[in-house]
Amino acid sequence: MLVNTFDRSIQNRIDQKTKPVGALGKLETLAFQLAKIQSVASGQLATHIDVSNPIVIVFAGDHGVAAQGVSIAPSAVTQQMVMNFLAGGAAINCFCRANDIAFNVVDCGMLESVSDSSGTLLSSRLGDGTDDFSSQPAMTLEQVTKGIDAGRNIIASKIESGVNLLMFGEMGIGNTSSAAALLSAITELPVEQSVGLGTGINADQLALKLALVQRGVDRAQGKSVTEILSHVGGFEIVHMVGGFLEASKRQIPVLVDGFIVSVAALIAAKLDPSVDDVLLFSHTSQESAHHYVLEQFDAKPLLDLSLRLGEGTGAALAYPIIKCAAEFYNSMASFDSAGVTV
Amino acid sequence: MLVNTFDRSIQNRIDQKTKPVGALGKLETLAFQLAKIQSVASGQLATHIDVSNPIVIVFAGDHGVAAQGVSIAPSAVTQQMVMNFLAGGAAINCFCRANDIAFNVVDCGMLESVSDSSGTLLSSRLGDGTDDFSSQPAMTLEQVTKGIDAGRNIIASKIESGVNLLMFGEMGIGNTSSAAALLSAITELPVEQSVGLGTGINADQLALKLALVQRGVDRAQGKSVTEILSHVGGFEIVHMVGGFLEASKRQIPVLVDGFIVSVAALIAAKLDPSVDDVLLFSHTSQESAHHYVLEQFDAKPLLDLSLRLGEGTGAALAYPIIKCAAEFYNSMASFDSAGVTV
Repeated sequence: MLVNTFDRSIQNRIDQKTKPVGALGKLETLAFQLAKIQSVASGQLATHIDVSNPIVIVFAGDHGVAAQGVSIAPSAVTQQMVMNFLAGGAAINCFCRANDIAFNVVDCGMLESVSDSSGTLLSSRLGDGTDDFSSQPAMTLEQVTKGIDAGRNIIASKIESGVNLLMFGEMGIGNTSSAAALLSAITELPVEQSVGLGTGINADQLALKLALVQRGVDRAQGKSVTEILSHVGGFEIVHMVGGFLEASKRQIPVLVDGFIVSVAALIAAKLDPSVDDVLLFSHTSQESAHHYVLEQFDAKPLLDLSLRLGEGTGAALAYPIIKCAAEFYNSMASFDSAGVTV
Repeated sequence: MLVNTFDRSIQNRIDQKTKPVGALGKLETLAFQLAKIQSVASGQLATHIDVSNPIVIVFAGDHGVAAQGVSIAPSAVTQQMVMNFLAGGAAINCFCRANDIAFNVVDCGMLESVSDSSGTLLSSRLGDGTDDFSSQPAMTLEQVTKGIDAGRNIIASKIESGVNLLMFGEMGIGNTSSAAALLSAITELPVEQSVGLGTGINADQLALKLALVQRGVDRAQGKSVTEILSHVGGFEIVHMVGGFLEASKRQIPVLVDGFIVSVAALIAAKLDPSVDDVLLFSHTSQESAHHYVLEQFDAKPLLDLSLRLGEGTGAALAYPIIKCAAEFYNSMASFDSAGVTV
C-alpha cells in the first residue's frame, strides 16, 4: 500500500513537468524506477534522485575451458587486459573518464595475479582460473559460496563509501562459454541458442564451443543454482551474483551491461527474485543470446550500439542517460512553477 | 585521393585499439566520421578528435497555422517555453546541465518578443510569427533569404568563438505541421505519411492537420527549395537551414535532433549535398515521418528512447556517446602500446 502511494506520487511529479505527458519516453520510465528504488530505500517519497556517485567495477577471472581454443585470444589476454585497465588504456577507462565514473578492477582468480600501486585493483582470488567445465566442475561449492560472499562484501563496502549507482563489467577469456552454459543449464535454452560468437570466433571455434558447452550443460542441468554455478560458472560471475544480491538488499540501482553480466543478474534473480527491482538495462549486445536473457527480465535496454566488448562498456555509455533522467526528475520546472499553459 | 588516405589511416588507428576489430560497433563508425570531418577541415590526419566545446541552440518561432488548432497547445506556449528555457527549467536545460553543454535560444520570430538579461537569448526576428500556410505563403522569399543568412551568421559566430560540436533544437507550436508540409513538398511523400501526432494530438486534430498541410503542399509542390520554404516553412526552420549550410562550409559536425531538425537538414542537403558529410544523427523520434527522413540520409541514429519533445533533447542525450567515441579514438591504448596479444 505504501508502495502504491509512492507510485502515484512519483508519476504525478513526472507528469507535472513542462512537457506533454510521456514525451520523454524511456527517460520517464527510468526516472520512475530510480525514484521508486530510492523511495523504498528511504521509506519516504524521493523528491531528489541521487546517482551522482557511480562506479564501474570490472570483475576478472580466467576459465579452464579457454585452453581448448573457444575464444579469439588466449587466456594470457585476461591478465594483459587487466594491466591495460590499470594503466587507463582500455575502452572502459575511456568511457569512465569521459563520463566521470569511478573505476575498480577485481581479480577474482586470473591464472596469475598482478600487482598494482594505484588502488584500482582489488584482490579476491578464488583460485588460479577455473577448471575446464567441459570435463569437470569449474569450481567447488565452497568456491561458489566464497565468491558470492566476496562479491557481496565488495559491493557493501562500495555502498558504505557512498556509491549510489553500480555498474559491473567483466574480463575473462572464455567467459561467454561459461555464461552460455549457465544460461542453458538454468533456463533449458538449447546450447545452439545460448552459444554465440563472443568477440568474434570462426565457424570451427563455434562448433567446438557448442560441443564443450553442451558437455558442461549435460552435467549441470537440473541441479540447484549453486550446483550449476560450481559446474559451469566463472570466478568473476559468482562475484557478480553476490554483487547483485547485495545491491538488491541495500536498494542501490545496478545498470546492467551485456550478455555475461546479464546472465549473472539472471542467476541472482533466481536466488532472490527481488533483485529484479534494482536492475536497469543499459544495452543490447551483439551476442545473440543476450536478447533471450533480456526477455527473461522483460527488459528494454537503453542503447543498441552493436557492442560486443564487455568490460562494462555498454553500462558506462548508458550512464549519462541515467544522469539526465535524474536531472529532469530533480530540477525540471512544473507547469505551475513555469507558468506554462497546460 | 587525399580523402582516401585519411580513410585508411583513420580506420587503422581504430583497428589498432585494444579491442577486437569492430567490437565498439557504432562508436567506431562515429569516431571514423568525426576524425574524417576534422581531418578534412585541417587538411591533415586528425589524431585527436575535439568535441569538447558543444552547444545546443534552440531556434524558436511561431506559426500562423497554429491558430487553426493543429497542436495540443496554443501559440502562447512557444513564448512561455522560451521563458522556461531562459529560466533553466525545461528538459533541454536539464540535459545540457547534466552533460556540460552550452545553451542558447534564438528568437527567430515568435508572436511576441521576450526580454532576457542572461545573454542566453539571441534575437533574430523575421516577423511576428509566420502567416497561415494553409491559405497563403508562410513568409516572403526575402524572409527566407534573410533567415538563412541569419542562421549562417549565428553559427559562424559560434564556431569562431570555439564551438566544435553543434546541436540544433526547435520550439514553435505548429512546427510539425510546417515540417510535414516541407517534407511532402520536397520529396512528394503523401501527407498521410508526413503528418504525425506531434506532441500528442487527437483524431479530429489529426484530420484537420492533414487537410491544412495538404493545402500548403498543393501550392508549394514542384517549386524550388527556396519557394517551398516561403510557402510552408517556419522562421526557426529557415534559420536552421542556414545553420546547417554554415556548419558544412566550416566542417563542424552537427548532431541532428528529431523530426523538425532533420527536415531542416534535408532541405539544407538539397541546397548543398555536402551538408550530409557533417551530420551525425542522434535519435529516432516518435513522430512517424522521422523514419522516412532518416532513410533519405541512410542514417542509423544512436538512440531510440521514444522521445517526442523536440527542444534538441535527443541530441543533448546523445552527446555523451559522441564524447566517448572521441575519447576512445584519442586515448585508448593500441595493442602495441599496451602489450596485448592480438
